[in-house]
Amino acid sequence: MANLLLKNALILTMDQALTTVQRGYLQIRGDRIAALGEGEPPFSEEGYQVLDCSGKIVIPGMINTHNHLPMILFRSLGDDVADRLKRYLFPLENESLDAPMVRAGADYAFAELLFGGVTTCYDAYYFEDEVAQAAEACGIRAVLAETILEGPSPSAKEPYGEWAYTKWFVEKWKGHPRITPSVNCHAPYSNDTEHLVAAHDLARREGLLMSMHVAEMAYEHTGCVERYGLSPVAYLDSIGILDEHFLAAHSILMDEADLDIYQRRGVKVSYNAGSNAKSAKGVAKIRQMLDRGIPVSLGTDGAMSGNTIDIVTQLSLVGKIQKLFNGDRTLFPAREILQLATIGGARALGMEGEIGSLEVGKKADIAIFETDSVNMSPLYDPYSVIVYSANPGNVESTIVDGELVMHRRQLRSMDFGAVKARLLAYQEQIRQTAAELDRALAEG
Amino acid sequence: MANLLLKNALILTMDQALTTVQRGYLQIRGDRIAALGEGEPPFSEEGYQVLDCSGKIVIPGMINTHNHLPMILFRSLGDDVADRLKRYLFPLENESLDAPMVRAGADYAFAELLFGGVTTCYDAYYFEDEVAQAAEACGIRAVLAETILEGPSPSAKEPYGEWAYTKWFVEKWKGHPRITPSVNCHAPYSNDTEHLVAAHDLARREGLLMSMHVAEMAYEHTGCVERYGLSPVAYLDSIGILDEHFLAAHSILMDEADLDIYQRRGVKVSYNAGSNAKSAKGVAKIRQMLDRGIPVSLGTDGAMSGNTIDIVTQLSLVGKIQKLFNGDRTLFPAREILQLATIGGARALGMEGEIGSLEVGKKADIAIFETDSVNMSPLYDPYSVIVYSANPGNVESTIVDGELVMHRRQLRSMDFGAVKARLLAYQEQIRQTAAELDRALAEG
Repeated sequence: MANLLLKNALILTMDQALTTVQRGYLQIRGDRIAALGEGEPPFSEEGYQVLDCSGKIVIPGMINTHNHLPMILFRSLGDDVADRLKRYLFPLENESLDAPMVRAGADYAFAELLFGGVTTCYDAYYFEDEVAQAAEACGIRAVLAETILEGPSPSAKEPYGEWAYTKWFVEKWKGHPRITPSVNCHAPYSNDTEHLVAAHDLARREGLLMSMHVAEMAYEHTGCVERYGLSPVAYLDSIGILDEHFLAAHSILMDEADLDIYQRRGVKVSYNAGSNAKSAKGVAKIRQMLDRGIPVSLGTDGAMSGNTIDIVTQLSLVGKIQKLFNGDRTLFPAREILQLATIGGARALGMEGEIGSLEVGKKADIAIFETDSVNMSPLYDPYSVIVYSANPGNVESTIVDGELVMHRRQLRSMDFGAVKARLLAYQEQIRQTAAELDRALAEG
Repeated sequence: MANLLLKNALILTMDQALTTVQRGYLQIRGDRIAALGEGEPPFSEEGYQVLDCSGKIVIPGMINTHNHLPMILFRSLGDDVADRLKRYLFPLENESLDAPMVRAGADYAFAELLFGGVTTCYDAYYFEDEVAQAAEACGIRAVLAETILEGPSPSAKEPYGEWAYTKWFVEKWKGHPRITPSVNCHAPYSNDTEHLVAAHDLARREGLLMSMHVAEMAYEHTGCVERYGLSPVAYLDSIGILDEHFLAAHSILMDEADLDIYQRRGVKVSYNAGSNAKSAKGVAKIRQMLDRGIPVSLGTDGAMSGNTIDIVTQLSLVGKIQKLFNGDRTLFPAREILQLATIGGARALGMEGEIGSLEVGKKADIAIFETDSVNMSPLYDPYSVIVYSANPGNVESTIVDGELVMHRRQLRSMDFGAVKARLLAYQEQIRQTAAELDRALAEG
């Protein structure tokens, strides 16, 4: 495929100085950014596929650092039901989820990410090899892990059955140019100390990121205090698994001592603004985290929790919820929110040398917004327009690893019609199972 | 123009029983809904323009009950600046705003509403006759008022200069089939008692809705207590102007006694979830209001406060912020949120006999969502899909008063290219004025 050359673009580089190029070019060679600057490119355009980005806003591809992608299969089911996980999700997962179904969900979820300008995603689910194959096929960058928990789970009927899967999965995918394996333990309450320590050992031995839901649930906190006399964060620290290669999702129920631990250990955070709000769990103290130098990134959680998995939708939510929660409208200016979505995500995944900003030598992972749609004008501050006005439908093109994977709202790396048909083929089966679960509940 | 017939549609009627038609028809004759039902229409389709709504979700047109439409001219300017109103908006309004500029802003704002499936909007601004002319031209339904305040204002240099304008405006527009004049006093702190009472008298004499910002600002509360020894709501009640024709915008800083007054007087509320969150003002207690039978509707505020003025974007925010604020994920099921956006808006405007639900005899004001886009599947619960997954770009067609004003993302009642060009013609002038204001501030 020809190398790409973006011209006449308003470029938000998201580099350290937050350099904004009002009208410039971005040259891609292979999978990397070769040049970037104001005005016309000072080299021949021959051999390049030129994208005229007049009236477009070019930003680094967005990074979603917490997801359970195949859960998109169940989106819009039981949204406002208190016990939706126990009532719908766990029975549906345990009774019907298999590898082909995970693949169908993963394909569809990756389509939503690429349509929305997300170029890198962290995911943890079951049958994760299917997710990895889907990621490989569609061209996205991904950090992926099989979820380890006591179980049973859809992919392992015996306790900690994903342990062996994880070791096999890491072996299979390590060294892949776009897919990075990770070690994921579900939560402090669903894993014992032995397995948490072993997982951390595995992650350190293989040089991988370890991730977990932490300080998310009220019962997690209570249980931890009862069992260990410690908060979840203090407990995880006491067993020695918190370090700069640990990505903690959610991290809502945190006191100052917990924040001290994150800061001291270099723990990274995935903030899930929409999911945490919709589930009424609370608001993560990301202002305090950032002020302490704790790296914060944005995640969406699975689509059964947060419904949409693009990052554009989160941007405005982050601003609104954080300003409201902190009682200060000046907090989190738009450009800082966009940092969380780009370079913040890269830092959380330990990939800030490769992605997260548009700089020469970095990977060419890019989202291009149109400004033709009614919500995108006027344009006094492009950061503000993207954070407070844009929706994922305004992403016109997505580039990953130098490849134009979505262009003019068409996926080029997958057949969206076929992907959607495979998702919808499961819809009726899931609807019927849910109806049976409702009936069983009604009959007591 | 030919009468419309919608076929094969998933129809959320939003009637009292929340009737959902899984696959049915909706027949429009002139400006009204003539028939609606399951299956195929039991009459000849001859003479109708048939819209095949297979795979579409049809809902009542959404209603935005609080706006300052022409402020869209200033969108994305000074978003995260504490004193943005005094620093940018008031100088910009007072120095440069004139009737043609208001018209340019209003045209653009109405385009955004129609693209987003909003069929009725309450607006209060300056030079409101320009807004009314824009509404008349584009085919939207609107309740409109000149903002009355002590001033000076962009449209009146002498105190209460909009008083005469209001009387003239009411005379001019009363009796119009789509445009309803209203009486709007800016706020309790920007009007004296004499003018508030006179405005209420005028509204009652003419049978019009009166609206005002109420219980929005901390300084409003403090000032009211200092001057009158009463909360803003208690003060407005003490002067006799709260009744069932009073629409109170915001209503954030409310105690139980204030809620008692709203309930007793039949006051209607416009809840502005996004604007109130972004400005860190607080969260209106709409659960308590609704439980007391106080009608609640949704507004966006001006685009300089809330950025986007469609209602789809508000739906998910309402759910997330209310669930979070009340600590209960089961509150505000999706269908109740959609009620606020439709029949709730109609009640707030005193138009529930005419609009707000899809019922035979009511006005044909309709929004049609596509479900082709990636975020719109799967579809287990159409209310949930619209509230938690949709964005305004998913609205495919908008019908007002029986007329197809937006179809397949094209406006049919206005030339969007020309409207956008007129908005952008002001952009450079506004940018320069803002830069001058910044320089003046820097120089002290």
